[in-house]
Amino acid sequence: MRILLFREDGVIEPWAREFAALMPQVQTIAWREGEALPPCDYAVLWSPTPALLDQLAHVRAIFLMGAGVDALLKLGDALPPVPIVRLGDAGMGVQMAEYVAHAVLRYFRRFEEYEQQARHGAWNPLPQIAKQDFSVGIMGLGRLGLPVVEAMRLFGFPVRGWSRTPKAIAGVDCFHGTDGLDAFLRGTRVLVCMLPLTLDTANLLDRHNMGKLLPGAYLINVARGPILAEPDLMTLIRSGHIAGATLDVFRHEPLPAPHPFWNEPRISITPHISALTVRHDAVRQIADKIAALENGQPVADLVDRQLGY
Amino acid sequence: MRILLFREDGVIEPWAREFAALMPQVQTIAWREGEALPPCDYAVLWSPTPALLDQLAHVRAIFLMGAGVDALLKLGDALPPVPIVRLGDAGMGVQMAEYVAHAVLRYFRRFEEYEQQARHGAWNPLPQIAKQDFSVGIMGLGRLGLPVVEAMRLFGFPVRGWSRTPKAIAGVDCFHGTDGLDAFLRGTRVLVCMLPLTLDTANLLDRHNMGKLLPGAYLINVARGPILAEPDLMTLIRSGHIAGATLDVFRHEPLPAPHPFWNEPRISITPHISALTVRHDAVRQIADKIAALENGQPVADLVDRQLGY
Ligand SMILES: NC(=O)c1ccc[n+]([C@@H]2O[C@H](COP(=O)([O-])OP(=O)(O)OC[C@H]3O[C@@H](n4cnc5c(N)ncnc54)[C@H](OP(=O)(O)O)[C@@H]3O)[C@@H](O)[C@H]2O)c1
Ligand SMILES: NC(=O)c1ccc[n+]([C@@H]2O[C@H](COP(=O)([O-])OP(=O)(O)OC[C@H]3O[C@@H](n4cnc5c(N)ncnc54)[C@H](OP(=O)(O)O)[C@@H]3O)[C@@H](O)[C@H]2O)c1
Repeated sequence: MRILLFREDGVIEPWAREFAALMPQVQTIAWREGEALPPCDYAVLWSPTPALLDQLAHVRAIFLMGAGVDALLKLGDALPPVPIVRLGDAGMGVQMAEYVAHAVLRYFRRFEEYEQQARHGAWNPLPQIAKQDFSVGIMGLGRLGLPVVEAMRLFGFPVRGWSRTPKAIAGVDCFHGTDGLDAFLRGTRVLVCMLPLTLDTANLLDRHNMGKLLPGAYLINVARGPILAEPDLMTLIRSGHIAGATLDVFRHEPLPAPHPFWNEPRISITPHISALTVRHDAVRQIADKIAALENGQPVADLVDRQLGY
Repeated sequence: MRILLFREDGVIEPWAREFAALMPQVQTIAWREGEALPPCDYAVLWSPTPALLDQLAHVRAIFLMGAGVDALLKLGDALPPVPIVRLGDAGMGVQMAEYVAHAVLRYFRRFEEYEQQARHGAWNPLPQIAKQDFSVGIMGLGRLGLPVVEAMRLFGFPVRGWSRTPKAIAGVDCFHGTDGLDAFLRGTRVLVCMLPLTLDTANLLDRHNMGKLLPGAYLINVARGPILAEPDLMTLIRSGHIAGATLDVFRHEPLPAPHPFWNEPRISITPHISALTVRHDAVRQIADKIAALENGQPVADLVDRQLGY
């Protein structure tokens, strides 16, 4: 079996090593712009060029090296008519839980205020926020949303969730679809966005929707930048309706130098690091999925081009 | 039944209200310095004065409003010869888990460095620390230590624990006693102290013992200040052997103004807030224990004066 490995950044060596270790019978091949693609059975890639996509109509499936498919699906008709499979968890779920837990606990336990006090040598216990007034609402209950739900439940926060299709999760108030959005937001204080970027979710976090959150609201976006209307967040933070935000993703990355987020102390910025693919886990999952496809079995994480995720 | 309520700070009203709600058949009574104590069956108190202790020899048991018993046991022979019962969890376990998880995740995911970068408008992903190199060692596997163990396990950290008596906890490398201390420390990177302050634990965290921790070590002390040799921590941080510390408790509280900890940016200081008694939970637990005592049943959290906890 021959598997094409391609990344825009060219760094495929470490991926080739993982395939060699986990699928020794497989031959991995590279491709460079301007070359003809040798015959191959599967393609494993991130940010393919149009010239490469033109030559992929014959592969049995395309596997992505990441969880987000928005950039690829934007290519539309340029995509070959073969199954596209995204990564499953690939070590990212626990990283998301770590990232979100840190941000939620930091706000809930007022640790940033304590750090500011300590800088001035002030010893001053602050009143604790009551947990029942600190509901955490998670948008997106997929591969990455569920481990976050679990961590929030461990700490005893009231947890609510929102997804496209109905869900039943023990201990979680579940809402779904456009009809459920209003009730979900009106009962949420800390909003965690773990949605894929699709036609339906772009600009979903705008002034109108974020304005429905409970007083003292806080936003955590670890999904994709264009889901958030960035100027609307600035407006709501300045008006005091939103107390602050922790953002890992932005419309333009790296976040440009003159962006107002940089100078807003109530916004914490990280450079798209909330969850990185763990290569070893990713290749193991791809290997399992290839085995399933070869045996004619159904495979998880198939991308639905209509839905956009 | 009559129950004496006493606190050095005088704030017993909210405690009286909880007793009225949970044990309506009980009469709570107050006492002021200089008064004779009316007869009572139990005493529930925090920081009693010698004059009060002199009059408590006839109560059936003394209940404490907090988890730490070091301050009380220091009174030694002045203590009446009746059972002393400390609080159980009383809502503090989850707060400890929150506090420790925030500090551990902050160091592990380098969030403080990201905040510093953001202050200068720098977008710069940093290499992640490998989880297998990030063992968390928890000293004290009691009421408050175990919820911390659980949170660390949820995030997948390698967890080790140290206690006085042997323990077996799924997924945790357990060590115990003086003989087990060396091996425990030599495999630990992040040290979380949840021990009671006793003759055996005072100054346990000194240069000698903390010097055994793995490179890149980090200290979290949420137990009692005198367990830590404070100047030794400064020495080890300055030498680079310890990367930083998060401290909630100190030898002298409030931490005095000229203390070197205030000016060490690698030390995060909070004003003894890691876990506050949840009054409602505390009174419910005391009520259950009184019921057990009245029925001649054994009661948990009895203080062992010999062991000091
Ligand atoms: N910042 C980072 O470092 C990073 C890293 C990895 C991934 N991500 C982002 O995280 C996103 C989520 O990843 P995942 O693996 O958890 O995806 P997933 O397993 O496909 O889950 C997506 C969830 O979003 C819900 N959803 C989708 N469209 C919706 C809509 N219109 N209305 C309501 N709910 C909707 C889905 O609902 P149903 O369950 O009903 O289908 C599902 O629960 C990825 O798309 C990616 O953009 C970010
Ligand atoms: N900062 C705050 O806000 C705050 C709030 C509440 C409590 N605290 C502190 O936290 C401490 C722990 O509370 P807890 O409720 O978890 O106490 P606990 O249930 O009595 O547990 C104490 C643990 O420490 C271990 N231990 C005691 N002496 C030891 C020794 N010499 N060597 C090794 N291990 C020893 C015990 O071992 P065994 O299991 O073998 O007995 C036990 O596992 C309290 O004493 C208090 O000082 C601080």
